[in-house]
Amino acid sequence: MVKPPSFLSAIFGEDVKIKEERPKVTLTFAQSLDAKIAGVGGKQLILSGRESMVMTHWMRTMHDGIMVGVGTALSDDPQLNTRHLPAGVPHSLPIPIVMDRRCRLAVDCKLIRNYAEGKGRQPWVICSKTDDGEILERKERLESAGARIIESDDNELPGVLHTLHSLGIQSLMVEGGAQIIDSFVKSGLVDRLVVTVAPVVVGPLGIGYSLDPASLAKLSFQASEGMGIDHVISFLSR
Amino acid sequence: MVKPPSFLSAIFGEDVKIKEERPKVTLTFAQSLDAKIAGVGGKQLILSGRESMVMTHWMRTMHDGIMVGVGTALSDDPQLNTRHLPAGVPHSLPIPIVMDRRCRLAVDCKLIRNYAEGKGRQPWVICSKTDDGEILERKERLESAGARIIESDDNELPGVLHTLHSLGIQSLMVEGGAQIIDSFVKSGLVDRLVVTVAPVVVGPLGIGYSLDPASLAKLSFQASEGMGIDHVISFLSR
Repeated sequence: MVKPPSFLSAIFGEDVKIKEERPKVTLTFAQSLDAKIAGVGGKQLILSGRESMVMTHWMRTMHDGIMVGVGTALSDDPQLNTRHLPAGVPHSLPIPIVMDRRCRLAVDCKLIRNYAEGKGRQPWVICSKTDDGEILERKERLESAGARIIESDDNELPGVLHTLHSLGIQSLMVEGGAQIIDSFVKSGLVDRLVVTVAPVVVGPLGIGYSLDPASLAKLSFQASEGMGIDHVISFLSR
Repeated sequence: MVKPPSFLSAIFGEDVKIKEERPKVTLTFAQSLDAKIAGVGGKQLILSGRESMVMTHWMRTMHDGIMVGVGTALSDDPQLNTRHLPAGVPHSLPIPIVMDRRCRLAVDCKLIRNYAEGKGRQPWVICSKTDDGEILERKERLESAGARIIESDDNELPGVLHTLHSLGIQSLMVEGGAQIIDSFVKSGLVDRLVVTVAPVVVGPLGIGYSLDPASLAKLSFQASEGMGIDHVISFLSR
């Protein structure tokens, strides 16, 4: 696949209009049939198959930034890159962005190591302005390790998104975990929702998500497609 | 569609082997993306689209009996027939079977009315042997209204399935609700699981189900297919 799957081109071919000065937000995650996004205690699950994983990496190339919460960053140690795309195909690499109020990201995480080794873009870490000595210390350590620290006065998402927009992020792909999904949905800041459903049952002890239908009211079904044994469903704000 | 969709023929083309004297059990339901099978307070939701509804009616023709719990029978007043199939196409009609320990089924429910009006097969009601005067009275009323009462010594599913088998039910489609799904899964009595996923979000107040992965361990992914805007996923006991 030397270009994005036609499903992606089609769904992103339909544009969304927003009024605020903020990036357009694509919320995306993979879930089991029983709507779990992680295992017991938040343990990472490889839910999606090869095809939808590659699709997700193509979707990353279509965004300026890719965001996860620090919970996911700590538990999964993600790379947030496009390593599953075929070698030699030129594409744009999104900036990894971690929502990390208290600067808990590990200095030896893959995001920082990849950047140090020239294998990834500089990760941005969004944290609170604070006087707390411990947090300040961690902030400095992250900065020395190579992260770009972005201090946010306003810990609420609209303020954070406004800041990101002013820094050039016009499109943001949000990948989870459960808490970030919940925050974005509750804030009504989701312009696209792209969910991969894997034919797997995790069981009641897995981590689910909470999608309040009222907060999602402006989203409507856009398209769906089988991808390997998974199924990808897209909703769009209209 | 004058014959079952090829997806159905394909998945039912692969047979399951069982040792016990009981019907082969297909558990099937439609769910929202967030794995809800009913609305707040068990309110019925029309989750699936036209195509998957027709598919479900074709699937009904492939079973001797079709079972729901009395909770679903009371709240949805289902017909459990094949009315969405094209007229004039000959097909087999399954026997509607209600699990109804305490004979709570309404005498004027559609299942009984349809039978009385020659528009449906005689519904079977499986209830407990009891001395309780109230239950006995309801049992008699149901019987007079036209239902076939099947008394079960053993309220556990294996006993009920054994009884159904002795009455000629060799294949049983189980359609829910949540409690029946749970009972079948926990008893390890599911040979096929066919789930329709609709691109709809119900929200955390909807009724979910609980699929214990350990109880489903013998089931493995069989096939999946888009059907209209829905997606149908099949698991098979191997």
